[in-house]
Amino acid sequence: MSTKPDVAFIGLGAMGFGMATHLVKVGYSVTGFDVWQPTLDKFAAAGGKTATTPAAAVEGKSVCVCMVATAQQAQQVLIEGESSAATALPQNAVILLCSTVPCGYVESLAAQLADPNGPVRRPDLLLVDCPVSGGATRAADGTLSIMAGASPEALSNEAGRTVLSDLADPTRLYILNGGGIGAGSNTKMVHQVLAANQILSGPEAMGFAIRLGLPPNAASLEALLASPGRSWMFGHRGPRMIDGFQPLASAVTIILKDTAIITSEARRAGFPTPMTGVVENLLYTALGRGYGGDDDSSLLRLFTEGAPTPSSTETSPESVKLVVDLLKGIHLASAAESLAFAHFVDLDLDLVLDLCINAAGGSAMLEAYGPSIVAVLRGEPAPAPKGDGSDTETLADIYKNLAHAVDAAQQIKAPIYLGTQALNLLRLALRKTSSDNAPASAAVNVWVQ
Amino acid sequence: MSTKPDVAFIGLGAMGFGMATHLVKVGYSVTGFDVWQPTLDKFAAAGGKTATTPAAAVEGKSVCVCMVATAQQAQQVLIEGESSAATALPQNAVILLCSTVPCGYVESLAAQLADPNGPVRRPDLLLVDCPVSGGATRAADGTLSIMAGASPEALSNEAGRTVLSDLADPTRLYILNGGGIGAGSNTKMVHQVLAANQILSGPEAMGFAIRLGLPPNAASLEALLASPGRSWMFGHRGPRMIDGFQPLASAVTIILKDTAIITSEARRAGFPTPMTGVVENLLYTALGRGYGGDDDSSLLRLFTEGAPTPSSTETSPESVKLVVDLLKGIHLASAAESLAFAHFVDLDLDLVLDLCINAAGGSAMLEAYGPSIVAVLRGEPAPAPKGDGSDTETLADIYKNLAHAVDAAQQIKAPIYLGTQALNLLRLALRKTSSDNAPASAAVNVWVQ
Repeated sequence: MSTKPDVAFIGLGAMGFGMATHLVKVGYSVTGFDVWQPTLDKFAAAGGKTATTPAAAVEGKSVCVCMVATAQQAQQVLIEGESSAATALPQNAVILLCSTVPCGYVESLAAQLADPNGPVRRPDLLLVDCPVSGGATRAADGTLSIMAGASPEALSNEAGRTVLSDLADPTRLYILNGGGIGAGSNTKMVHQVLAANQILSGPEAMGFAIRLGLPPNAASLEALLASPGRSWMFGHRGPRMIDGFQPLASAVTIILKDTAIITSEARRAGFPTPMTGVVENLLYTALGRGYGGDDDSSLLRLFTEGAPTPSSTETSPESVKLVVDLLKGIHLASAAESLAFAHFVDLDLDLVLDLCINAAGGSAMLEAYGPSIVAVLRGEPAPAPKGDGSDTETLADIYKNLAHAVDAAQQIKAPIYLGTQALNLLRLALRKTSSDNAPASAAVNVWVQ
Repeated sequence: MSTKPDVAFIGLGAMGFGMATHLVKVGYSVTGFDVWQPTLDKFAAAGGKTATTPAAAVEGKSVCVCMVATAQQAQQVLIEGESSAATALPQNAVILLCSTVPCGYVESLAAQLADPNGPVRRPDLLLVDCPVSGGATRAADGTLSIMAGASPEALSNEAGRTVLSDLADPTRLYILNGGGIGAGSNTKMVHQVLAANQILSGPEAMGFAIRLGLPPNAASLEALLASPGRSWMFGHRGPRMIDGFQPLASAVTIILKDTAIITSEARRAGFPTPMTGVVENLLYTALGRGYGGDDDSSLLRLFTEGAPTPSSTETSPESVKLVVDLLKGIHLASAAESLAFAHFVDLDLDLVLDLCINAAGGSAMLEAYGPSIVAVLRGEPAPAPKGDGSDTETLADIYKNLAHAVDAAQQIKAPIYLGTQALNLLRLALRKTSSDNAPASAAVNVWVQ
């Protein structure tokens, strides 16, 4: 067992508090900092030490975990604020930046630390770009997914690795060797393409189901979750969609923040993200209606306004099929957008796919067609089919079934923003394929130049 | 002057009543039919004759104008309903189908009339597919835009041509020689791509302007309408946007009906309409909120929810530029989608462009770049620039300016669905062009195989 370094922990929000108290539980000396005094009191009660400035928290600590909410906050606590952390850290300390921030920000942070004429001049500090995924429960259990990029020296630093290992599930600690600073944030970003799309596809599908007359109950949900339309997000949010959007597990503003990172980085890189673009606008609409602080399962309200409450308690197989076909089309398009973006920013596609399938971005369609989408992106032959029939549909099949769902939605005047977008993207992809029997993975041709 | 044939007029709604009474005014004997008795009484008071069934209305008339609201209604009054018109019309009479219907419907109507085993067996009847555009005022003035396709025999029929000439503005009667049945409906449809997108782009732009702090007043509107972001629709709806959405000129449900025709025909043809797809979903959202019967200028409400009322009365040039750049990007994308669809359904692109520029689909961007988009679609060299600098921007310029507007919208969390869609489409188009200096017309490359 390796020696546990003393840790400074900056940012004790829903995620950070769980992570920091987990470290305390497994034997670390952790000094926490947060701007919200009641949180600090609570952390002290859980066995942590506390400090009233970032500088005081990091004094003498060889590892500083930063888990604030935004790049602006990270810049404040690490560099610009009064008594910020960077200048106060001991020589050769490690900064584990676990916040979800744009790749562009973490690159600029590395440059600021190293700048010999900058405000901090700390080229000795070892910055690790290591956003996390998994939610508050896994944060508190030390079983997060973590994707870590940095210089070889920072990545191999013993103290930093020890802390990361104790925060992550052992099978879900992704060390992005060779990726460098930005690879962690980019990996999180492409995962969030799936997360964002699938946080919305569930409500859109459930709203469509309700308008088709399916009762919003456990039986309907079960039918949808047992299908190729399933996603991790729908499994997680679905029960709250049929149960008054309670309890509050993840607010609309959380995914909105990550979605804005995706689209702003896409603009910076010159990459099109039409699926996520639709998601972002729906989230702004939700924000304008005052839903920002509500659980994101409540986005269902965007799709049920004006809909009659279903009078039936029966789950019609025909209606279930339409909803499943809607979800399949959306999830194929979001898988293609996510993996194409990962390829565009030079990530290791095998690692990204493995990570996404086993995290909140997972879906049946990603599992089925992700490997062959990766092959298309690399210009390699498609992998052999799994043999269970789950991954052998053609693009034309998925398009045709989605088109039937869109026809049905039009008849009942149901808003299906993502389904419509997916349909148009799959149609653009079909126009770029030479064969009528192109596999579903050809959806990614929209993004292939 | 030609002899005025006796006319049966079926469907006396906002448009039909104006058209029918105009015919009465200029000397026709017109027998009207409508399901709504008060309308019939009003028509009688205006000098028309009335009938209580379609069959009674058409008895002995050599021309039957059908101006009902939907394909379903047309099918009822012409073919399927009790005492429907088709069987009762005299030999070789002309049916002028002025309703906006899908091309697929008018093709099926022609087939039903001609079918020797069908319910009516009237191959002698001359069907003209001639939807109109221009609104209720121009309907009543006899100055509509009319786009007419049919067999050569039907198109050259004297009685039918006489009536069409009296309903249309002489410069806006588009006889689609060689187009056949469907060409009129398709021409209207591609015009409505522009109409639908521009009915929404005005509210989206005005909502963005308000969130940027521009006062929703005449000065702001004037600044936007004097720019390359102008459109006929914004000029028409803009004053009502800043004046409480009054008076009711065109309800949300009207453009929704035409939008559904566009997207369903696009699915039938296998053509992607990503811009119009977004519009349709926004309209369903509006419908769900109960805005269906309101003037479509009130779609502004979709974009201002939760927005603070601007406190300034000043119109900042920087903010105006952002809004103009948003509109320019949207209108370039909608022009490309419309003309590419026109090309896909084999319409005469010069005629379509001329019609659209001079009708409700007009915009500064269509005027500037429409001719060069047509050249791209035909694989011809671009026309010479006009010399006034209005048509020489590159695709990269328009993209870059739109991206700045989208950045600004993201900062203030403004929903800009069409702007985001246009941005992603222009980015896809840029990826398909080999040169950094590709002209703006290269936007249409999204749709070029």
